[in-house]
Order: sequence, then structure tokens, then C-alpha cells
Amino acid sequence: MSFDSLKKKIRDVRDYPKPGIVFRDITTLLKDRGAFREVLNILVERYRDRPIDLIAGIEARGFIFGGALASDLNVGFVPMRKPGKLPAPTMTETYALEYGEDKIQMHVDAVAPGQKVLLIDDLIATGGTLAAAARLVEKAKGEVFGIGCVIELAFLNGREKLKPYDVFSVLTYDSE
Amino acid sequence: MSFDSLKKKIRDVRDYPKPGIVFRDITTLLKDRGAFREVLNILVERYRDRPIDLIAGIEARGFIFGGALASDLNVGFVPMRKPGKLPAPTMTETYALEYGEDKIQMHVDAVAPGQKVLLIDDLIATGGTLAAAARLVEKAKGEVFGIGCVIELAFLNGREKLKPYDVFSVLTYDSE
Repeated sequence: MSFDSLKKKIRDVRDYPKPGIVFRDITTLLKDRGAFREVLNILVERYRDRPIDLIAGIEARGFIFGGALASDLNVGFVPMRKPGKLPAPTMTETYALEYGEDKIQMHVDAVAPGQKVLLIDDLIATGGTLAAAARLVEKAKGEVFGIGCVIELAFLNGREKLKPYDVFSVLTYDSE
Repeated sequence: MSFDSLKKKIRDVRDYPKPGIVFRDITTLLKDRGAFREVLNILVERYRDRPIDLIAGIEARGFIFGGALASDLNVGFVPMRKPGKLPAPTMTETYALEYGEDKIQMHVDAVAPGQKVLLIDDLIATGGTLAAAARLVEKAKGEVFGIGCVIELAFLNGREKLKPYDVFSVLTYDSE
């Protein structure tokens, strides 16, 4: 399956979540088993046999791809969640939104010192969430092995914010 | 790995989310690659080579196991989400909570008529969410192939509410 055919599996939802935005809806790709498998194969190809101890998935869509990839690579999984969702003691990082800010949390014992963590999300937009997730791993004295995602909105320059890290995306959009 | 050893990988968090409740925290199991693999193997064993078209995962922890199992079984994945999270037209079901009610949504085109859907969540408690998710599948004229989860709190009698369906859980707790 070519990148163009994979992109055709993604539904464009206009004016969501607000007027002027084109939302890239990956649920139409996920329900297509061939397309879902192809995206996972590309990620597996990239990360197979690399020294990765854990995959950290970003709530919520990052859980789907992160869980699947953790199974495929046979590594453990760590959830990065919105505030108040994790039951045991957490550490928190704050990141900027267009208006205001948001927070992301990880259990304090989720990553052991020295463990290599691959961060997985469905989307890189401005890179703020993933940069905060990377800081959480480093706060726990883990090492960010890399950042992998399915869709990269390249025109939002998320890579700039994620510069210290190895960033990989399956599909890139150069404009809205 | 025995069921007892798997249970030891689950962390008991007392008084969460409120006094008197023991929360079964599966994040300690997830980060252990052997335990995570074992849970997935048990689910794969149960559902391999069955006529399943789609796995529907319940937000948010059901996305982790559901995504992984969809990859393992090579089927598509459908997210069942909290209200307002899905970008395209949705259908909604309401279910009762201890105090008040909650809703769950699915895209109207997520399941095609006649498709066989396996529902996956991390936990069966009272069964309310999963029963609502099953109604969504049936509203779309899909067929609920079964309901699979990692932990079943049997003392809450969730199976009663899920009676018409084939229910499977990896680990059962008979009391708090």
C-alpha cells in the first residue's frame, strides 16, 4: 500500500474542532485492517531490534498505536495521561496551548532510571504534548529513544520543538 | 506465568478513586513486558481464528489492550469514546452510574451491517459501559461476537447485565 493509498484511508473532517481547521480523522484507517496493519508494519520496520525497553503512549489515540506497537515489538507499555487519571503517585509536565495550557502525567515509577523509551502518538501538530511527555521520561531519568507517530502536520513545525529527539512519522502533510 | 503471578503484577491502590475502594491498577502489569505479553497471549488464544471483523476498544484503557489485540488478530479497530471526542457523526448510548449517568459514542459508519465485533476493555465492574457499547454495535446492525477484558470484578455482577453475550476475562476477583 503506497503512502497515497494510506492517506486516502484518513478522513478529512472540515471545521473540526473549530472553523477553518481540517481534522485528520484516523478512525477510518483504523477500522480498515489492511491499512492499520500497513501503518504498524512501517513502525515495526523502523523500530524492530532497536534497544527499546518501553513504549509510552499518549492518551488517548496514542494508546491504540502504542499498545499495538508494544505488542508487535514485545516491550512494556506506559500510559501518559491527562491530569487526575492515573491512580498512583504521578509526575506532571505543563505545556502551552494556543490559548492557555494543559498538563500531562506519568506514574513516578513508570520508567526506571536508564530505561529507553519510545514515545508514540497518533499525531505531531505543534509538538507541545510530545515535548512535555519527553520531559516526563527524562525527569524519571529514563532516556527518550525516539518519537514515533502516524501523522505529522509538518506546516506546524512540531519538529522544531522536538529537535533533540529522533522523530519519525508514517505520513506527512505539508499543508492543511 | 500463572494467574496468581499475573495478579501480583497488578497494583492495589487503596481508597481510589474514593475512600473504601481498592483500585486494580494495571499500569504495573503493562510496563512488565512478560506480563503484558502473557495477558495478550491468553486473549489471542481465546479469539484466534474466530470470525471477528473488528475490535471495538472502550476509552481509554480499552484502547491499549484493544489496539494490541487488533494487531495480534489482524483485524480493524473501532474506538468507543466519551462524548464530544469523535470528529465525525456519532451515535450515542447512555448508561447509569452509581450517581447520575454517563454516555458513550461511536461513529455512525464505524461498524457496517453484519460485521462481527469483539468488545475489549480492561475491566468489567458493573458492566454498564460494556452493555452500552454492545447496544451501539447493534444500533449499527453489527453483531457483538463477544466481550473480552483483563480484569473482572465478579462481586459486582457485571455478567448479569451482559447476559446475552459471550463474556471472557483473563483475571477474576471474587471480592475486594
